[in-house]
Amino acid sequence: MTSDRPDTTVDLADPDVTGPDADAPDIAALDAADPLRGFRSRFTLPEGVLYLDGNSLGALPVHTPERIARLVRQEWGEGLIRSWNEAGWYDLPRGLGDRIAPLVGAAPGQTVVCDSTSVNLFKVLTAARRLRPDRRVLVAELGSFPTDLYLTEGVGVAARDRRLLDRDGWTTDSLAGLLADDTAVLLLSHVDYRTGELRDMAGITELAHRHGALVVWDLCHSVGALPVELDAAGADFAVGCSYKYLNGGPGSPAFLYAAARHHDAAEQPLTGWFGHADPFAFEPGYRPADGIGRFLTGTPPLLSMAGLQAALDLWDEVDLTALRAKSLSLTSLFLELTAPLGLPSLTPAEPSRRGSQVSLRHPHAYAVMQALIERGVIGDFRAPDVLRFGFTPLYLSHRDVLDAATALREVLESGVWREQRFTASAGAVT
Amino acid sequence: MTSDRPDTTVDLADPDVTGPDADAPDIAALDAADPLRGFRSRFTLPEGVLYLDGNSLGALPVHTPERIARLVRQEWGEGLIRSWNEAGWYDLPRGLGDRIAPLVGAAPGQTVVCDSTSVNLFKVLTAARRLRPDRRVLVAELGSFPTDLYLTEGVGVAARDRRLLDRDGWTTDSLAGLLADDTAVLLLSHVDYRTGELRDMAGITELAHRHGALVVWDLCHSVGALPVELDAAGADFAVGCSYKYLNGGPGSPAFLYAAARHHDAAEQPLTGWFGHADPFAFEPGYRPADGIGRFLTGTPPLLSMAGLQAALDLWDEVDLTALRAKSLSLTSLFLELTAPLGLPSLTPAEPSRRGSQVSLRHPHAYAVMQALIERGVIGDFRAPDVLRFGFTPLYLSHRDVLDAATALREVLESGVWREQRFTASAGAVT
Repeated sequence: MTSDRPDTTVDLADPDVTGPDADAPDIAALDAADPLRGFRSRFTLPEGVLYLDGNSLGALPVHTPERIARLVRQEWGEGLIRSWNEAGWYDLPRGLGDRIAPLVGAAPGQTVVCDSTSVNLFKVLTAARRLRPDRRVLVAELGSFPTDLYLTEGVGVAARDRRLLDRDGWTTDSLAGLLADDTAVLLLSHVDYRTGELRDMAGITELAHRHGALVVWDLCHSVGALPVELDAAGADFAVGCSYKYLNGGPGSPAFLYAAARHHDAAEQPLTGWFGHADPFAFEPGYRPADGIGRFLTGTPPLLSMAGLQAALDLWDEVDLTALRAKSLSLTSLFLELTAPLGLPSLTPAEPSRRGSQVSLRHPHAYAVMQALIERGVIGDFRAPDVLRFGFTPLYLSHRDVLDAATALREVLESGVWREQRFTASAGAVT
Repeated sequence: MTSDRPDTTVDLADPDVTGPDADAPDIAALDAADPLRGFRSRFTLPEGVLYLDGNSLGALPVHTPERIARLVRQEWGEGLIRSWNEAGWYDLPRGLGDRIAPLVGAAPGQTVVCDSTSVNLFKVLTAARRLRPDRRVLVAELGSFPTDLYLTEGVGVAARDRRLLDRDGWTTDSLAGLLADDTAVLLLSHVDYRTGELRDMAGITELAHRHGALVVWDLCHSVGALPVELDAAGADFAVGCSYKYLNGGPGSPAFLYAAARHHDAAEQPLTGWFGHADPFAFEPGYRPADGIGRFLTGTPPLLSMAGLQAALDLWDEVDLTALRAKSLSLTSLFLELTAPLGLPSLTPAEPSRRGSQVSLRHPHAYAVMQALIERGVIGDFRAPDVLRFGFTPLYLSHRDVLDAATALREVLESGVWREQRFTASAGAVT
């Protein structure tokens, strides 16, 4: 017993814990029937690693290094300044946005790639509030990824004007209780980063609109994990990151969606030259670009843009219906295989309410996850007690799910996790 | 005569135009005595190109592709999420800031690398205004790079509260006339992007402080071109980009400086999780980090950060006094060699007032620059009539200056520029 924390958890020697082998489904048959199985070979993954953290940082597509090297050696090294025009750099923020658009159910011309999710939240939250100048209240989630809440402070919503949905779960009814004719903006995550719960985008957007509020959707944990239908839902604004399920690379630029009906009236305060109607006229006064371009700000990070550009080559080939079916098959299997372990699940059992991750609770979740990582099974830990497993349909198989569940059972049954020492810097980056 | 614009310029057949060969200095001796001449081999430059646009986009260091490939293949591809800690990704915004610090005369802990120059301007302008809540006026330059002016609108300075220095030149006296006890912030470029004029940072900062105003310096055209002394000058805030003289790569992240004395009280509104005191505690409320970290916002673009990281390896070796001496030697030589061509110079003749570029006026500047570019001499055009030549001391020689001046003379004397057709999309990206 090397753990220096008191043991308040279940008895891991409990003979009822029989583990996932008992009634294993026909894993091989599931994988043989998987229409997306060919994508696994399009990714580079290290030997000996079972990677269940693609919802934090997606894996490297095989062809990405070559694309980035070409940008560096040819477009930058040889083309130099000429590449802004000749290599199409200048068009990338809009062009990559239009390539993400089908993944989020957006018609062209409503999506741009730029900046970070946090910076883009600042833009759309401010724009949305200015479109509802006679309303002061913003509704958000106490349990949202923290940067979303932080930005509601940054844009200047007073504490008294912020109504927060409960951290430990909420329903459409509890949401309805917070919306009123004073509500300017509703900010929600489409999939909760911690629990993996998927929200009813269309129903909730309609509910908010009935109260006259605008809706900002955070798609960080849904884009690339399942089909998203912003236009069909009537969404107003959305943001999302490209380094998780989209596999754009570490810190690859975020995206921003604004429904076309808002473009003419929308104002955002990060009025840099890339959002100007005529950036190279060098006019002294700011005139926002027509359309979605007014949400751009400064010079884009081209190397990071190239990583996303390469990743989108793969997405052009993906059938999102098949992606969703496989995602649910993987998460359902993991829930089934780990159920005998007795760890409470934060992730909804109903497939229609589930994203592409499974979150299980354990009082020593940090130590358990460290022990899994030492065995090459990489998920992540979320304070205080969450084991988070992301299931990316493009490069994981049902066999991987079985192996992950087996590893978890062995870690719990053997007690090796007790040998992990707790360290404060526990987090991976979501 | 294929030009479709009226010819209102000097007569290019004028026999007085004798060109730069007449009294050429001893170019070879100047280059032989250049203590920085060894740096040329550390850069990759295309064959047949004389690159005078390093003040728009710096050249590719030889070792940069390998550094970026290592980030992509090993840190991302193999390390995956673990690299946030194990490869030091999380520390890069502060770490790269502290490596830029010596180039801008800043003690450690006052500089971070993040976002774009435009986004960082938004942060520091807002922070500075909040530190002077009883003052409404912002003083800036009508002739500044446009994004600086645009951001003064974005942060909400009313038109009546904005006093602008004249576009066609201003002196410390004219600046003094705009400062008063209602002035919250003075925003200036250290080196003017169009004329190459260098401002007296220490004197102007002191002048502004006497009026109780805070000073924000835009270092885009001075960092890496000459020594900058922010701390010694008593500067309050500064921003700058890393893709020009620093050679960080296209769109590499910008930097932000805030004097330590302002850290505790400074508030900036882009309150993303990377600026939180404890980002991985996932607290629902925003608590700004101590020190310069509170100016960070979102997840940094790692591939682009790696380009800058590689470039800074070179800067660790550069003697800034030698850099400045060579820069002035190059620009003085170009001014001397091109003087007989009779093109009016926008760039100050006095070395102490000159950055590292030379800007010459010609009524058909766009066509002339296009003709130069066709000969492999790449400078850039700034509307309406400016030929802009950047002289980067790390990879240009006096011989390059002679060749550039000769090419300019030949283009003007031969009239080949008249064969260029004017196109509207003339700009390179500054």
